[in-house]
Amino acid sequence: MLAGRLDRVRSNAIRDILKVTEQPGVISLAGGLPAPEAFPVAELEAAALRLFRTDPGPALQYSPTDGLAPLREWVAARLTATHGGSFRPEHVLITHGSQQALDLVAKVLLDPGDIVAVDDPSYLGAIQVFDLFEARFLTVPADREGTDVDVLAARLAAGARPKLLYTVANFQNPTGATLPLDRRRRLAGLAEEYGFLIVEDDPYGELRYRGTPVPAIATLSERVIRLGTFSKILVPGLRVAYMTIPAALYPAFIKVKQAADLHTSTFAQRLVLETVSEAATLDAHIARLCEVYGERNAAVLAALDDHFAGLVDWNRPEGGMFVWARMREGGPSAHTLWKAAIAHQVAFVPGAPFYAMDGDAATFRLSFVTVAPDRLAEAVGRLRAAYDEVA
Amino acid sequence: MLAGRLDRVRSNAIRDILKVTEQPGVISLAGGLPAPEAFPVAELEAAALRLFRTDPGPALQYSPTDGLAPLREWVAARLTATHGGSFRPEHVLITHGSQQALDLVAKVLLDPGDIVAVDDPSYLGAIQVFDLFEARFLTVPADREGTDVDVLAARLAAGARPKLLYTVANFQNPTGATLPLDRRRRLAGLAEEYGFLIVEDDPYGELRYRGTPVPAIATLSERVIRLGTFSKILVPGLRVAYMTIPAALYPAFIKVKQAADLHTSTFAQRLVLETVSEAATLDAHIARLCEVYGERNAAVLAALDDHFAGLVDWNRPEGGMFVWARMREGGPSAHTLWKAAIAHQVAFVPGAPFYAMDGDAATFRLSFVTVAPDRLAEAVGRLRAAYDEVA
Repeated sequence: MLAGRLDRVRSNAIRDILKVTEQPGVISLAGGLPAPEAFPVAELEAAALRLFRTDPGPALQYSPTDGLAPLREWVAARLTATHGGSFRPEHVLITHGSQQALDLVAKVLLDPGDIVAVDDPSYLGAIQVFDLFEARFLTVPADREGTDVDVLAARLAAGARPKLLYTVANFQNPTGATLPLDRRRRLAGLAEEYGFLIVEDDPYGELRYRGTPVPAIATLSERVIRLGTFSKILVPGLRVAYMTIPAALYPAFIKVKQAADLHTSTFAQRLVLETVSEAATLDAHIARLCEVYGERNAAVLAALDDHFAGLVDWNRPEGGMFVWARMREGGPSAHTLWKAAIAHQVAFVPGAPFYAMDGDAATFRLSFVTVAPDRLAEAVGRLRAAYDEVA
Repeated sequence: MLAGRLDRVRSNAIRDILKVTEQPGVISLAGGLPAPEAFPVAELEAAALRLFRTDPGPALQYSPTDGLAPLREWVAARLTATHGGSFRPEHVLITHGSQQALDLVAKVLLDPGDIVAVDDPSYLGAIQVFDLFEARFLTVPADREGTDVDVLAARLAAGARPKLLYTVANFQNPTGATLPLDRRRRLAGLAEEYGFLIVEDDPYGELRYRGTPVPAIATLSERVIRLGTFSKILVPGLRVAYMTIPAALYPAFIKVKQAADLHTSTFAQRLVLETVSEAATLDAHIARLCEVYGERNAAVLAALDDHFAGLVDWNRPEGGMFVWARMREGGPSAHTLWKAAIAHQVAFVPGAPFYAMDGDAATFRLSFVTVAPDRLAEAVGRLRAAYDEVA
């Protein structure tokens, strides 16, 4: 009977917005999908052929609930190589996308009425699943550097007791913000002091176009459940992701994963493993993705500089898929701009639905990875024309 | 915090049993897996190649929560052609296996303490998920024709009020029983009279080796959620299944599926669709499966006749994967027989874990589909030698 909770789910609002953007001629900065022209199709095809031609039976059979052992080993080795620390295969669980990892987190850890701390704004899919399991939200304002840890610390000192804190610390969706190291350290300290768990969801961390990676929160604290996925660095349509879980909680997650769907698609896991197990292939692919997406990131920021300086404020994310913007005082609401923009054949997503509580009507999100640089310049130009009509 | 419920989950007992059976030399009648030598590997490989060579982008991208439209259309058309009635694509939801369908059923329909009626014994994965969502069980004894509807009717008349009734009406796991038409009609009538929903889980219905198919309960009542899967007629490792849902409940299932994992693996759905959309291919494959499995079904029944007449009673299922047996009065317990059998290098599963409440220690399950006919005869001979040691 959990579905009754979902009447206020905002993702429907975004789905309605996305429908409009599918009209021909519209340049869409609204979606959240990776660019299909950057999918490693040849590599996946070669991997599939190898699978079918060498002992395909096990790739098509039932398989263990925790995931294929070699894929869990690969994930642990990759995480350790990328982030330091010591990630271990026996703490890795393979899931049907990170959305399932969130479902499992809620099932294992949340009772109705438990408090989950989230950035405001935050990733909708996470809000949706915590909502479904009848969590209450402790919303923490987020600025250009992500979670405002001072505000969180004050609320904890005043008595707030979240069971979980959910964060996308690298290139957050929707804000593109990356949490600096000092804030990560303070978060880890607060988790220790107040006894909550941190869910560190990191779908975008490897999509860095400039600057220096910041250490994963999972390397700063043992109170972290870390989510990673192949959706953004490989393809989303396989639905293969992974989570690392503190040892004491691992058996409960296995039981709940077994009840949820027995195990993640064996064939999809094998296809991922065959594709990524040549490190050179994956690294070359990520390098290419970063080149393509990085050009688009630069193009959208340059176009915003050209057209919106002084009218709108925005951040300059060094990676990921999104730029977050806010109309200056006296400007139109994002909804008003959106209506005008559609008439000018350009689309984006107003920011209000991303807030767990009341949304900031002046904010909006620009997704830049699926549009070529020249079209991004054209799109932002159209957006300025729309702005001039309603300002 | 649901995981606390799972301490008494019996699937762990079965997993421990299965581990023993992996020893070399052991003939295992314990597993519940389809036979990998019967997987349609060439057909799946051809389908994968077609996918990669004609517009692979959409097959690797995110896709709708309800499932790919052409696959939902295929499922509705196939169900209508097989069972009559009028199954409609807009009532079909594609899931990551039928286990996920059960998870969604529990999430949408059950509050803690709600009553679920199940056969005793019944499918463990279903008991597990209803248990996780804190259902209480109304166990209904099952005989060789499945659910004892007289007992159910009496309990309902006495005041029991289940919200759901869960049934595997064709070749049940573990008992192999098939519910006759008159019992299906009575179940449908009771659902109408007492206002409960029937979850008709049908993984084995197309694996019929003899006799006449019995109409689906979904064609006898509108109060039915029907689960079907490609795991047993194609391969389990893709994790693609489907459910049909009454129109009024459909939107709630979509919301919960979206929160669970966004959607079922696009690539796995496309691979299934490419493989089954040639009706002749699928029908030929199922015919071959029925031929192979049917020989094994006949072989295990003949071997039981040879070795256990007068000592053990068993049913003669016309399809599916399992024979259910019960030691006669004065015989050893299934657990005692199991220990002796392992020493004789033959394995099966004692029946007790399949009961929601107290198990019948004299029962056991024999799975026959993964063992060739001559090895089945050898296995049952070894079982008789073990029996003679402990009787």
